[in-house]
Amino acid sequence: MLTAPSATAPDGPPSAPDFSGWSCPLPLRDHPRVVMGHGGGGAMSAELVANVFAPAFGGPALAGLGDSAVLELGGARLAFSTDSYVVRPLFFPGGSIGDLAVNGTVNDLAMSGARAAYLSCGFILEEGVEMAAVDRVARAVGAAARAAGVEIATGDTKVVEAGHGDGIYLNTAGIGLVPAGVDIRPQRAAPGDVVIVSGEIGLHGVAVMSVREGLEFGVEIESDCAALGGLVEAMLAVTPDLHVLRDPTRGGLAAALNEIATAAGVGVVVNERSVPIPPQVANACALLGLDPLYVANEGKLVAFVPRRTADAVLDAMRAHPLGAGAAVIGECVPDHPGMVVVRTAFGATRVMDLPIGEQLPRIC
Amino acid sequence: MLTAPSATAPDGPPSAPDFSGWSCPLPLRDHPRVVMGHGGGGAMSAELVANVFAPAFGGPALAGLGDSAVLELGGARLAFSTDSYVVRPLFFPGGSIGDLAVNGTVNDLAMSGARAAYLSCGFILEEGVEMAAVDRVARAVGAAARAAGVEIATGDTKVVEAGHGDGIYLNTAGIGLVPAGVDIRPQRAAPGDVVIVSGEIGLHGVAVMSVREGLEFGVEIESDCAALGGLVEAMLAVTPDLHVLRDPTRGGLAAALNEIATAAGVGVVVNERSVPIPPQVANACALLGLDPLYVANEGKLVAFVPRRTADAVLDAMRAHPLGAGAAVIGECVPDHPGMVVVRTAFGATRVMDLPIGEQLPRIC
Repeated sequence: MLTAPSATAPDGPPSAPDFSGWSCPLPLRDHPRVVMGHGGGGAMSAELVANVFAPAFGGPALAGLGDSAVLELGGARLAFSTDSYVVRPLFFPGGSIGDLAVNGTVNDLAMSGARAAYLSCGFILEEGVEMAAVDRVARAVGAAARAAGVEIATGDTKVVEAGHGDGIYLNTAGIGLVPAGVDIRPQRAAPGDVVIVSGEIGLHGVAVMSVREGLEFGVEIESDCAALGGLVEAMLAVTPDLHVLRDPTRGGLAAALNEIATAAGVGVVVNERSVPIPPQVANACALLGLDPLYVANEGKLVAFVPRRTADAVLDAMRAHPLGAGAAVIGECVPDHPGMVVVRTAFGATRVMDLPIGEQLPRIC
Repeated sequence: MLTAPSATAPDGPPSAPDFSGWSCPLPLRDHPRVVMGHGGGGAMSAELVANVFAPAFGGPALAGLGDSAVLELGGARLAFSTDSYVVRPLFFPGGSIGDLAVNGTVNDLAMSGARAAYLSCGFILEEGVEMAAVDRVARAVGAAARAAGVEIATGDTKVVEAGHGDGIYLNTAGIGLVPAGVDIRPQRAAPGDVVIVSGEIGLHGVAVMSVREGLEFGVEIESDCAALGGLVEAMLAVTPDLHVLRDPTRGGLAAALNEIATAAGVGVVVNERSVPIPPQVANACALLGLDPLYVANEGKLVAFVPRRTADAVLDAMRAHPLGAGAAVIGECVPDHPGMVVVRTAFGATRVMDLPIGEQLPRIC
C-alpha cells in the first residue's frame, strides 16, 4: 500500500522559507568564459540555455525543456533527444562510456514515454587513443543497444589531434514512438501527485568518482547504468496518465525535482528518510563531502503520478527488475511554487536548491 | 542541352588499368592507435567502420552506408543522420562551425531525398572558451536552421577541462521525411547514369586551409557552405527517380565517387576538363600540393541520374541559385566495377583512388 508522505510527517505542510531578499552569492551571469559549472546540469547550465542557446535557436520544441522533444512528423508522434558523453574514465565499475551513451539517450526518450527505436552514434576520437579502447567502447555500444532493443542506424567518426580530446567522446541522438494518449512532461506535475523514485540513488556518480580518485570504500560500488524503456512500459501498462518522468542524471535528484517544480510552478516536498540511499553511497559521500541528493544516477527515474493510480504504478515498478527498490519519496503541493523542500528525519524542513554548477564534473 | 561526356572524348571507353597485383603501400590494418587519417573520410575511415563499428553495432540500417539512414517508424518514412563537427578554426571565410553543423546534417538528409525537419544540437565546450564565441556559434546555428527551414528541437551541453577540447565541438543529428516513391542511395547507381555536380568544387577546404595556414591567394576564397534541401526538392520536382545523391565533403569528389562505385559495383568515368574547378582553387591547390578532386565541399552535391531525365534535371539545377554552376562531369559504366577513372584533357586515363587518410585534417 502507498503511504502518502504527509501521513508520516509530524507537522503540517511546511511553509516556504522567505527568500525575497536573497541573491545568489556567485556571479552566475556575465561569465566572459565557459567554466566547468556550465556543464553541470544545474543553475549555470540552465542559465547558458536560457541566455545563449534558447534566444539563438528559438523554436517551440526546445522551449519544452524536457529530456526529449515530442514532435509530429509524417503522421507519427516521435520523441527525439541527444546527449554527448565525456565521462572520465572511459571504463568504470558497472559500465563504460559506451553503455552510458546508449542508455542515457534511451532513457531520455523513455522519460517522454517513448520506446527508443533508432540511435545515431558520433565518435570524436583523440589521435593516439588505443584502437583496443575504441573497439571495447564500440562493442559496449552494440551490446547496450541490443539489450535495450534499439538499433544503431547511423554514425560518424571524427579524429582530433592529441591534446584536443580525452580519448573518446561520444554523442548519441535517438528517436522513438510516443504511444497514443501519453503526454508526459515536466509541466504536468500537479498538486496531489505522488513522487516515486525507482530505486537506490547516488550509485553512478560515486562509482565513477571512486575509480577517478582511486578511492576504496571497502565494497566496490557499481554504476546503476541501465536502460529504463522496459520499466516505463510496465508503468504505462498500468495507466497512460503518468504526469512526469525524469532520469536524475547530472545534478542528481535535486536538479531533477527543481526543474520539475519550476516547469510546472508547483512545490515539491521530499521526506528525507524515504529516499533510498544505500549505506555505501552515504559513507562515500560523507568521505567526499558530497550530498547524495545531488549525485548523478544513470539507471533510475523519478515519477510524478496522480494519487489515485500511485499504488498500482508502484506495484508495477516493484515487479520489474529495474524498479524493485522503488519508493514513494514525497508529494507535489500547491505551496511554495518552484521550490523543493526536504522534511528531515527530525521533522524540520530545509530547501533543496537547484545546484549551481556541479559537484562532480564529467560524470556522464 | 546535355552533352554526354563520351561524345567529347577523343577515344572510346577507357579500359581499366590492371591492378590485380597491387597492394596498398601503407599499413592500413592493425593500427594499434588511432591516427588522424581515421577521421579523413577515406580508406582508413572506411576500414575503421568495416572492422570496428559495423561488427560491433550490427544492424541492417547501418549497412546502407549512405549519408543518412532511411527508416520506417510509426508509418512514417524517415531519414536520420548525424555528424560531429571539429573544424578548426571555428570561424572561416563564408561560415563557421555553426553553419557547417546545420548545413552538413541538412545535406546528409537531403542526399536521401528528405527535407530536414528537426535537428538536435550537442555542444562539447572547452573550459575557458570565450562566451562570446559560444554565443556567435549558437547564433550561426539558429540562423542557418531558419534559413534551411529546420527546427532545433533538442540539445545538450557538456564542458571538458582546458586542454581536452578545442574551444567548441558540435554534433547535430537530424530527421526528415522521405517523399513517397523516392529511393535514393549509392547502391542504385547504374551503367548509363549521367554524373552531375552542382557547381564549383574545392571551395570549402581551401577557404578553411587559407585561414588556418595564414595564406593569401590574392582573392579571398569563401566556403561554399550551404543547405541543399531546396536544390534537391527542385530536382525531385522533375523526377522522383534520382538514383544517387552525395555531398562530397571529407575526401572530396574522389571519395564520394569511389564510395558510390564500390557500393553499386559499377565503374565511373569522369572527364577531367568538365569538372568545374575555379581558378583560385586550382592556384591554391597547386601552391599547397593538393588535388582539388580530393578537397572537401560543403554546399555541393554529385548526382547520378538516368540519362533520359538528365537534361531536365540539369536544367532544374541551373535554375536554382545553388545549382547555377551545375555541370555534367561523367557517366556510370559497366566496366571496371568499383573503380573511378579520370579521362584527362589529353585523352589519357588515370585511376582516381579513394583517398587513404586525409589531405586536410579537421576541415569539418
